[in-house]
Amino acid sequence: MKKVAVVMGSDSDLPVVRATVERLKYFGIPFEVRIISAHRTPYEAESFASTAIERGFGVIIACAGKAAHLAGVIAAYTTLPVIGLPIKSSFMDGLDSLLSVVQMPAGVPVATVAVGGAENAAVLAAQILALGEPELEAKLAEYKKRMACEVAEKDKKIRSEFKL
Amino acid sequence: MKKVAVVMGSDSDLPVVRATVERLKYFGIPFEVRIISAHRTPYEAESFASTAIERGFGVIIACAGKAAHLAGVIAAYTTLPVIGLPIKSSFMDGLDSLLSVVQMPAGVPVATVAVGGAENAAVLAAQILALGEPELEAKLAEYKKRMACEVAEKDKKIRSEFKL
Amino acid sequence: MKKVAVVMGSDSDLPVVRATVERLKYFGIPFEVRIISAHRTPYEAESFASTAIERGFGVIIACAGKAAHLAGVIAAYTTLPVIGLPIKSSFMDGLDSLLSVVQMPAGVPVATVAVGGAENAAVLAAQILALGEPELEAKLAEYKKRMACEVAEKDKKIRSEFKL
Amino acid sequence: MKKVAVVMGSDSDLPVVRATVERLKYFGIPFEVRIISAHRTPYEAESFASTAIERGFGVIIACAGKAAHLAGVIAAYTTLPVIGLPIKSSFMDGLDSLLSVVQMPAGVPVATVAVGGAENAAVLAAQILALGEPELEAKLAEYKKRMACEVAEKDKKIRSEFKL
Amino acid sequence: MKKVAVVMGSDSDLPVVRATVERLKYFGIPFEVRIISAHRTPYEAESFASTAIERGFGVIIACAGKAAHLAGVIAAYTTLPVIGLPIKSSFMDGLDSLLSVVQMPAGVPVATVAVGGAENAAVLAAQILALGEPELEAKLAEYKKRMACEVAEKDKKIRSEFKL
Amino acid sequence: MKKVAVVMGSDSDLPVVRATVERLKYFGIPFEVRIISAHRTPYEAESFASTAIERGFGVIIACAGKAAHLAGVIAAYTTLPVIGLPIKSSFMDGLDSLLSVVQMPAGVPVATVAVGGAENAAVLAAQILALGEPELEAKLAEYKKRMACEVAEKDKKIRSEFKL
Amino acid sequence: MKKVAVVMGSDSDLPVVRATVERLKYFGIPFEVRIISAHRTPYEAESFASTAIERGFGVIIACAGKAAHLAGVIAAYTTLPVIGLPIKSSFMDGLDSLLSVVQMPAGVPVATVAVGGAENAAVLAAQILALGEPELEAKLAEYKKRMACEVAEKDKKIRSEFKL
Amino acid sequence: MKKVAVVMGSDSDLPVVRATVERLKYFGIPFEVRIISAHRTPYEAESFASTAIERGFGVIIACAGKAAHLAGVIAAYTTLPVIGLPIKSSFMDGLDSLLSVVQMPAGVPVATVAVGGAENAAVLAAQILALGEPELEAKLAEYKKRMACEVAEKDKKIRSEFKL
Repeated sequence: MKKVAVVMGSDSDLPVVRATVERLKYFGIPFEVRIISAHRTPYEAESFASTAIERGFGVIIACAGKAAHLAGVIAAYTTLPVIGLPIKSSFMDGLDSLLSVVQMPAGVPVATVAVGGAENAAVLAAQILALGEPELEAKLAEYKKRMACEVAEKDKKIRSEFKL
Repeated sequence: MKKVAVVMGSDSDLPVVRATVERLKYFGIPFEVRIISAHRTPYEAESFASTAIERGFGVIIACAGKAAHLAGVIAAYTTLPVIGLPIKSSFMDGLDSLLSVVQMPAGVPVATVAVGGAENAAVLAAQILALGEPELEAKLAEYKKRMACEVAEKDKKIRSEFKL
Repeated sequence: MKKVAVVMGSDSDLPVVRATVERLKYFGIPFEVRIISAHRTPYEAESFASTAIERGFGVIIACAGKAAHLAGVIAAYTTLPVIGLPIKSSFMDGLDSLLSVVQMPAGVPVATVAVGGAENAAVLAAQILALGEPELEAKLAEYKKRMACEVAEKDKKIRSEFKL
Repeated sequence: MKKVAVVMGSDSDLPVVRATVERLKYFGIPFEVRIISAHRTPYEAESFASTAIERGFGVIIACAGKAAHLAGVIAAYTTLPVIGLPIKSSFMDGLDSLLSVVQMPAGVPVATVAVGGAENAAVLAAQILALGEPELEAKLAEYKKRMACEVAEKDKKIRSEFKL
Repeated sequence: MKKVAVVMGSDSDLPVVRATVERLKYFGIPFEVRIISAHRTPYEAESFASTAIERGFGVIIACAGKAAHLAGVIAAYTTLPVIGLPIKSSFMDGLDSLLSVVQMPAGVPVATVAVGGAENAAVLAAQILALGEPELEAKLAEYKKRMACEVAEKDKKIRSEFKL
Repeated sequence: MKKVAVVMGSDSDLPVVRATVERLKYFGIPFEVRIISAHRTPYEAESFASTAIERGFGVIIACAGKAAHLAGVIAAYTTLPVIGLPIKSSFMDGLDSLLSVVQMPAGVPVATVAVGGAENAAVLAAQILALGEPELEAKLAEYKKRMACEVAEKDKKIRSEFKL
Repeated sequence: MKKVAVVMGSDSDLPVVRATVERLKYFGIPFEVRIISAHRTPYEAESFASTAIERGFGVIIACAGKAAHLAGVIAAYTTLPVIGLPIKSSFMDGLDSLLSVVQMPAGVPVATVAVGGAENAAVLAAQILALGEPELEAKLAEYKKRMACEVAEKDKKIRSEFKL
Repeated sequence: MKKVAVVMGSDSDLPVVRATVERLKYFGIPFEVRIISAHRTPYEAESFASTAIERGFGVIIACAGKAAHLAGVIAAYTTLPVIGLPIKSSFMDGLDSLLSVVQMPAGVPVATVAVGGAENAAVLAAQILALGEPELEAKLAEYKKRMACEVAEKDKKIRSEFKL
């Protein structure tokens, strides 16, 4: 299976990114974690993104806050699908990050998930890779069922609590 | 190659969606276009989404405005990657659409592109499908080069116009 | 009297929903509490909403956060009045929830109350049911009077505190 | 059947309100149309709202723009359900109206529909009145079906247009 | 001198309002403090506002949060200048309050100060009353000078701290 | 009677300001109109504001757009009440102007009216000056009555149009 | 004198950028105009920015819309002062551009001017270059005076128009 | 080398400003720190700004919150480059400050950095002064390298932590 790269702009994003990593592990997807800054290590960003295909990556998850250029900069150097994970920074709960990530110009998309949507970045990566991997597709179906069961369980419990 | 479904919530979205369709054609990706409303034809939404895999779809592009639930509702019924295309409605240039599409809860992601980012919805779909299709990957690389050339062309022109 | 359904998208909404439940009890309105997720248990959402009339419900209160599709999805499957209660999630104090709930397209309204307006969801349900229930109407009038008295009481107290 | 009052704060709101009126007629709901300003004719607002029950009204639709106090002021004087219809004024597409209408304090709810959601104000009124009117409930079910058919019709047309 | 009325919509606003009261005392302006709710005690709001002139008030300060209709409702019943003090409620730091207070329609202004600008509500009231009260005008001039001195004092201190 | 100064930051604000001037004339209030820029003619702003009292002004209306510092700068140099009229500039319908005008720090208030609320700036000035001018107070009462009559007139007309 | 580079992300920005160019000419500052896209020609962006110092540039003005990464990407590759000019794109009057440009992380600043503030980008560049160029400083002082005169002229005209 | 002035509107801004001061020291740039309020000590603001050139300043950093007029007021009185540092006040994480600082009218720019971007205000000042100071330019290049090394260091560490 192709690998997923989880790239964050700063190590302060690590607490958020851990949920991405956990979910990738759960799906058994091989991954690498990197700290690359669009603004502080731009040469590394270029080198990383432009060689990602040949090094076996299938999806890149880029996570950054504030003027979050990381996902866009990576997308500029590759044709791989890039998932943008906006981080809730100190301004308006991450509105700056969200707009910086999602509002990409024509030709260079970033597949944006919710502000702080770390788990969903991994699920989306899994959905993308699953197109060529029936086993992963089965795991996703299983995961969906499990979520439904958990909600049904809680529903059952609350119904009995509030029984007329 | 797997097909792309382009689903819009209302035929008023058609002018925007045409740019998606044009770009899919450019990449030679097979596609179907549908009008399905999360609120007016919910049974169709369910039926469509829950059978999309078996009918040969690989990616679903869902485009809607206002309280844009279409992408999320489709994502609820499938494990395929769902690309959300928020439409600029009459309120704050589509802020309602953008937030309704992107802010999905954990477990059910929507890969959101820019408000009105119709072309990018297609490019992202192409990037996803290209993981298993070397020919499509080559087309994407070619497309990227062509964009760069066009910009370089314009740059050359403007430099001569403003020559000191 | 017809029953009120109080449906929440996740058990994390329970602390907010309790105020709804308390107020329904105060008015003596029969109710059921459910956890149903538009995205994780969509079949249950459909089944619940499409049979709500025949099971004796008169009003459905749907409470959700983030990309809050629950109220809209329920409204898609029933002609009962659906009250939307947006939950303050982690983004901009619930602006995403508010817009996802209130900005419904023509034909499928959601009667939206304030972000976190749990008590008002119950009061609105009571006002709706009271149209055919003179006793409930009397309780509402009484409730209105009691609120006025409480304010008048506080006014009296503060006037004496700040007496010239 | 109880009557619906359609109250607007200014005659400049009339073009929007017409869609409400048309939809009420469609459902065969008796109604009255009024121009009452919370700020310019406050005594009329009080007199109208406090006697609305005894004059046979079942629902009040209040439509206003800018600092849209009309719905809240009417709700202060009655226990009838009040539907708030925020009008797109000159500021941020009606964000001021929306927040002024929806963010009501505990105890005095306003059932808010989308900014400019004139038709939905009428549909919501119909849904409320239908609780005691089986004939109206049937009309709403019929209306829902018709909407679904219209979408299905358009879907069919677009599918053939974009046939592979 | 004419009196200032300080009216708040709820006793939860009291902590903010105290700064208004303190500043009015500082200027020696006679005042009364009231709790009157536009939505819970609307008859009291009407009665208070419509008789404020004859009871010797010169300025009314109205302080409220959320859908803050209090200032507008009072302004509807009087020709006295009404100062609106928006309270930071639970939504977007009081954006709802600010817009509900400031965006009044033509003919019925509310003199709005900053969100939570309790002291400024009092200073503005003093500036208004000072037009006919030379002594109060002198106090305002003195107050302005004192503020300047305090800043100059702090400036001096910081300059020495950071001396090169 | 004291005079009102109507100061605008740029002659592009003139179309908006005319409504202020018309309303001042209607009330028979003496006024002067000025173009003074906080940023381009700061010395004039200082000179004007610091001598406004001695030159017979009672209220200053300051109207500006974008980073609208004019009202605040004038308020810095005088103890007269300053009315801020935010102008709808090219950004978010004047949100920048509104926040720049209303969010003044403690000690230096600006009495802010709605974005583009030109008429209300004049009405507020009239209300302030009326405290010492019974004749002006009578005119304001008359104006309020006239507004009510106009609304009642329109109400009557619309009621007959929509008669059942 | 060092040169100014005026870089835009797309030729659609040209109408805005012309005002920058005109003002640079007015000050007699040598400049070059370029079209370089952070996302479409990233290698050119890198090459341009990393060699700008040695090619005689003193200031770089970067102008872009939507997810406006251009200024930040250029700033990543140079220690020259970079002026960011956010362009009013199709979303919320350029709020996305503004936040993408201004919210840079620590260490890599972008000197941001107003949305669409094309002339100010040039004036700021002139102010920066003037530190080492007394002649340019004199021109700036002259420019400031001329602006003041123009305002004074208009003030004079309007005062006579509205003479009492 | 020319000096940098670090001016704040209130001593409550000091905790933020310290990061600016530390970074200026790091670069060996001479500076002065002042507390000057645009609204409370406007004469000092004028006197300071209009004589800043002759007193050896090359750049002025102005830091303020809420209706943050300080940077604009200073820019009105000087042709020096003025860096605006918006402070996160109590409203929407400093959106009021940001817009008050950045949205300056044509002719009087303020070079705005991120909300709370204290370090970047200093770096930008250094970049501006470095145009005529090769030694400072070298320090900036060194600083950029150091940042890159720190990120590379963290990258190395995280890669080993998450080694497959």
